[in-house]
Amino acid sequence: MTSSTSVTLSQALLTRAISHHGSNSTSDRVSLSATLTLPSFAGLKSTSLSSSPSSSRPSRRRLGANRPVRAAAVETLDKTTETSLVEKSVNTIRFLAIDAVEKANSGHPGLPMGCAPMGHILYDEIMRYNPKNPYWFNRDRFVLSAGHGCMLQYALLHLAGYDSVKEEDLKSFRQWGSKTPGHPENFETPGVEVTTGPLGQGIANAVGLALAEKHLAARYNKPDSEIVDHYTYCILGDGCQMEGISNEVASLAGHWGLGKLIAFYDDNHISIDGDTEIAFTESVDTRFEGLGWHVIWVKNGNTGYDEIRAAIKEAKAVTDKPTLIKVTTTIGFGSPNKANSYSVHGAALGSKEVDATRKNLGWPYEPFHVPDDVKSHWSRHTTEGAALEAEWNAKFAEYEKKYAEEAAELNSIIKGELPAGWEKALPTYTPETPADATRNLSQANLNALSKVLPGLIGGSADLASSNMTLLKSFGDFQKNTPEERNVRFGVREHGMGAICNGIALHSPGLIPYCATFFVFTDYMRAAIRISALSEAGVIYVMTHDSIGLGEDGPTHQPIEHLASFRAMPNILMLRPADGNETAGAYRVAVLNRKRPSILALSRQKLPNLPGTSIEGVEKGGYTISDNSSGNKPDVILMATGSELEIVAKAGDELRKEGKTVRVVSFVSWELFDDQSDAYKESVLPAAVTARVSLEAGSTFGWHKIVGSKGKAIGIDKFGASAPAGKIYKGYGITVEAVVVAAKEVSS
Amino acid sequence: MTSSTSVTLSQALLTRAISHHGSNSTSDRVSLSATLTLPSFAGLKSTSLSSSPSSSRPSRRRLGANRPVRAAAVETLDKTTETSLVEKSVNTIRFLAIDAVEKANSGHPGLPMGCAPMGHILYDEIMRYNPKNPYWFNRDRFVLSAGHGCMLQYALLHLAGYDSVKEEDLKSFRQWGSKTPGHPENFETPGVEVTTGPLGQGIANAVGLALAEKHLAARYNKPDSEIVDHYTYCILGDGCQMEGISNEVASLAGHWGLGKLIAFYDDNHISIDGDTEIAFTESVDTRFEGLGWHVIWVKNGNTGYDEIRAAIKEAKAVTDKPTLIKVTTTIGFGSPNKANSYSVHGAALGSKEVDATRKNLGWPYEPFHVPDDVKSHWSRHTTEGAALEAEWNAKFAEYEKKYAEEAAELNSIIKGELPAGWEKALPTYTPETPADATRNLSQANLNALSKVLPGLIGGSADLASSNMTLLKSFGDFQKNTPEERNVRFGVREHGMGAICNGIALHSPGLIPYCATFFVFTDYMRAAIRISALSEAGVIYVMTHDSIGLGEDGPTHQPIEHLASFRAMPNILMLRPADGNETAGAYRVAVLNRKRPSILALSRQKLPNLPGTSIEGVEKGGYTISDNSSGNKPDVILMATGSELEIVAKAGDELRKEGKTVRVVSFVSWELFDDQSDAYKESVLPAAVTARVSLEAGSTFGWHKIVGSKGKAIGIDKFGASAPAGKIYKGYGITVEAVVVAAKEVSS
Repeated sequence: MTSSTSVTLSQALLTRAISHHGSNSTSDRVSLSATLTLPSFAGLKSTSLSSSPSSSRPSRRRLGANRPVRAAAVETLDKTTETSLVEKSVNTIRFLAIDAVEKANSGHPGLPMGCAPMGHILYDEIMRYNPKNPYWFNRDRFVLSAGHGCMLQYALLHLAGYDSVKEEDLKSFRQWGSKTPGHPENFETPGVEVTTGPLGQGIANAVGLALAEKHLAARYNKPDSEIVDHYTYCILGDGCQMEGISNEVASLAGHWGLGKLIAFYDDNHISIDGDTEIAFTESVDTRFEGLGWHVIWVKNGNTGYDEIRAAIKEAKAVTDKPTLIKVTTTIGFGSPNKANSYSVHGAALGSKEVDATRKNLGWPYEPFHVPDDVKSHWSRHTTEGAALEAEWNAKFAEYEKKYAEEAAELNSIIKGELPAGWEKALPTYTPETPADATRNLSQANLNALSKVLPGLIGGSADLASSNMTLLKSFGDFQKNTPEERNVRFGVREHGMGAICNGIALHSPGLIPYCATFFVFTDYMRAAIRISALSEAGVIYVMTHDSIGLGEDGPTHQPIEHLASFRAMPNILMLRPADGNETAGAYRVAVLNRKRPSILALSRQKLPNLPGTSIEGVEKGGYTISDNSSGNKPDVILMATGSELEIVAKAGDELRKEGKTVRVVSFVSWELFDDQSDAYKESVLPAAVTARVSLEAGSTFGWHKIVGSKGKAIGIDKFGASAPAGKIYKGYGITVEAVVVAAKEVSS
Repeated sequence: MTSSTSVTLSQALLTRAISHHGSNSTSDRVSLSATLTLPSFAGLKSTSLSSSPSSSRPSRRRLGANRPVRAAAVETLDKTTETSLVEKSVNTIRFLAIDAVEKANSGHPGLPMGCAPMGHILYDEIMRYNPKNPYWFNRDRFVLSAGHGCMLQYALLHLAGYDSVKEEDLKSFRQWGSKTPGHPENFETPGVEVTTGPLGQGIANAVGLALAEKHLAARYNKPDSEIVDHYTYCILGDGCQMEGISNEVASLAGHWGLGKLIAFYDDNHISIDGDTEIAFTESVDTRFEGLGWHVIWVKNGNTGYDEIRAAIKEAKAVTDKPTLIKVTTTIGFGSPNKANSYSVHGAALGSKEVDATRKNLGWPYEPFHVPDDVKSHWSRHTTEGAALEAEWNAKFAEYEKKYAEEAAELNSIIKGELPAGWEKALPTYTPETPADATRNLSQANLNALSKVLPGLIGGSADLASSNMTLLKSFGDFQKNTPEERNVRFGVREHGMGAICNGIALHSPGLIPYCATFFVFTDYMRAAIRISALSEAGVIYVMTHDSIGLGEDGPTHQPIEHLASFRAMPNILMLRPADGNETAGAYRVAVLNRKRPSILALSRQKLPNLPGTSIEGVEKGGYTISDNSSGNKPDVILMATGSELEIVAKAGDELRKEGKTVRVVSFVSWELFDDQSDAYKESVLPAAVTARVSLEAGSTFGWHKIVGSKGKAIGIDKFGASAPAGKIYKGYGITVEAVVVAAKEVSS
């Protein structure tokens, strides 16, 4: 099957890759050859390319005898698959990627060509999934953190029998309306767990998926039934490794001891700007050891199938630490002129090089062809996957009989069904209720909800006592107490957001929340955007939401943040004004499982205002008081959050002077936009152009609401360090300013 | 001076701190005691608290004989300062912090109390600066990355004699209009180099400052004159260490071998949520070794003055690597009931505990009192600092005589003077110039400017060949070629931005630029905000600025990003439409040294349009074509960047149908806002309400410009993966849509 040319080439490339890395990583760390003695040739027929000792296949049984680790599909495989067929399958993956990128004349062939061996082993030999039900709860999760290499995953989903990636989908790679977009998108392609592409997000999502598994396993597994039991696999590249977010989450994964997280580091030494030597010479191995991971080095990721297999077995045997398998590969493996260079990273090979690669790898087939023996080999996953799910279903039925309550609860998490009447847990308030900060009111809501929502889990980036996010009925989620629900993220906002995306997308009934100061959404914005894009209903609890935080000063005072999220698609930006509105914000946030919510909450105390309501919040904008008739007030005053109190007072002043005034709470612009035109007219009649808005933040965007004749009062410069009251006054966020403006616009 | 109680207490705390850390850091790494043999007691009088061997002072001369490292102020000190006075000074720092926080009833006393010893040694013994000229070019730089501990720095600046922090400033800590805001702000307090508080930013700024030093030293130093020669010191805490950005920049600092960067890690094991054990159990030492740093552990940061001194000497002796000095301290050292707990981190001690701490540390003085001997001891820095600067000025005068050209260039960097006529280097274009992508036009500008602006330096986050940012006349800034100007940041956007802030704030004439895809500003937003707040004129070269990037899909397509930056204070968001506008954008960006600029640039080719101009860009919004008279067009069409071509075509269509149409380029909203009302009226006459805007991004904010009767066409959902033309059509960003809207609004 393989020409001698290709052997020579691949060996040459391999030598280059290894020698290159030798200079990079000074200490060899846990290389496989050093730590794992491979059993000798076990009599299986081998037609492997390589003649190196590592090509001899370990007998599963012998390895298994030493290390009783779970290995599912491998069991079948060991009996049937020859290495020649493995290679053929691996080359099928390579050429599906090459051909799709070529047809689109756009995309990234390099990674799929280099990672095809580990991809094949994962999807064909290791992972447990049911291609006909991509949402089977107990499936192993796979995340391609290096999302640009998505053709790897599409090829694997195609071979595995997922209906989402048929041949025509491969042929419409990166085209309008296709199921195979330019980066993996969970909302487009069933079988894709999360949305990746922005580097480092995927490994963070994987940490979230693994956290979710560990948490649910701890809560629901019984000595006689491991009903929650899957691995999370991830492939990340040099780019992911350079991003700060990956270090944040790797530190947490090590801290939490996520033993069922197995990450493959595609160590190909090439990024867009060329050799990683120009910007990335750290020892990744040493760093990950410092982070508490088990680290394995597979030196030959191009053809060392057994090395990869053995590494996975070793990783599974280490149950108290996550494992990083550094797999040294050649980017664009098989391309005679472009392999191991940046030119194969992000552009089609070009027809000439495609031909050369076909020749080099001995691939006589037409584009997009899957050879019959490969097809036939992979076809078993449909039946095996169905069997795996059926087996689990039977197990769950048994579990249900013995543990009815737990089963019902777990089922609600699996299906994303909220318990009947959960909203009754939301606290309500009257104007007589003492004033309180909405961050404290938020805590009351979180604690109330934690008792009725089994899937509520979350925490803060080291500000639990400021963000007020601790669930008092629960302890800390930690390595040895994973059944608990208070997650301690440390000062890692970006990782926190992306981990929550992973939790949210693990099971529809998991409702992750996370918290920091509102201004520090700047640190996690990339993760928040992925929440919105990937329809992950994370609840962002963002306190200290304005200059009202006072003395910490402008580095800590959000100004443009409300506007910046109002401009972001598919996200709900909520800024409640008091107790009822905070409860309303939580009602909205819990119900919106496919739209993340950001709650901007005050540090300072706010009174409970007459007229606010949960129902009002659900409309986004609503009248809290009005002394006009016929939908024709002299002036409409509007505000959000902590400034609603101020415009309410201004309204009272103006009414004393004989004006008719409507006061509107604009708690969520997005929800208001969703209302009918008739409703909008009832709140903001077109005929009333005398409108004043007040918000302790940028006025940017308010002019759409106040109109050309209205006035937006806000803060269009940075804040200041001083007691809050002083800043409000100094910046003109006052009753007086609203009264003056109202008279101006209504005169 | 010190009561026996305090000895016992501090020793107990120390034992706790060390034993605690023993369990955290399994391998002790380079602890001082293991690697550095301290000389025996050298005869200097010592009244140190501790009786441990490490309290004996090493003779500077003996150490110096072995390791010829530069030590300036220490030389004087060794002859004169007794340890009792050092301790008194250290306690002065502690109490200035305690008293200021107490008076403000707000702030963070814990860090200053724990870090006072290293702070004292740095400012009194090690650093070279001139308090009466905080901007002296060759000063050592200090960055408090753990910015919440700013009272440490204010106390030090006060003792050192900086005019910016007088006693009354300490007394108005965190008050309206004071020079001592709640976090260090370079624009408020001369002597503060950068603005910190958001964690991790400061260490990144420090890397930028050290990069600037290494770069300028390589360019301007001569064998007979080291005219550029200073250290960069930084204190960072556990919080900084957890943030991803710090890992990004530490990886780069190791890669670049920034030997004159010395970072103190205040290892106090406490963060806001309590003991760092709950979220931060990695081995920081191991990680930093993996990142290529020299790591030293000072086990007794509370009273081990000699350990700290020796660590700094060792760090200076290692010239090819940055050094991390892990200094184990007790947060809130000296407070009998609150030390070593989160309660001392971020709140005033309370009068009772302040009294107890006074008693415990034997401090009989009134609040804010600086004992005479301490005052007298520090007073020498005024004269010594002046002498240091004078000495350097003399050296520079010599240098100038020998190397006139280099001196002139360096001087322009020091003073921030742009060379006369630099603007002539900007390329100009005519409508006949072939269409090109603005990212390519940007490259032409960067390359032209690099020849006339000696301070231009920058690069991309691993997208140089996509962002088009390589300076062709220069090589790569690397460890062994630091004189070059192409910086390879790797895939580290956040670190990149913050490093550029450090470069910009090193010298007024350094003009850093950095680049990635526009959507990935999400990764670096916190750093960009600090650019804006701290008046760092960084140029952000952000390409692939819309759905026009095509196949990479929604994860890579900015939507809300223009709006999100237009809402941010003190930043210029520029989206040029063609060659002349790109040149105009660079003119603006270069001239605005205290306001960062973001250039949003296209991946796709754009024609050079009639009517665009550099002068137009400087107005922010201007008419590029108009067939009306009397400032009364039937309709005004507006756009930015790649959509200007589309509205220009729509204008032509409408004119064919007999309409009078004005076409306006709105390249920078902020610049337009800066114009006179008369100018604004000349572009957007109030009487003309028929206005249509087009932008391939969120419509958020456009309504202020198009008014209640106008129409904003844009994209208020996420993008899609497909060829660019297909997406433009599918999303209605077309000539037809503009024509229809124009007719609607003008009918």
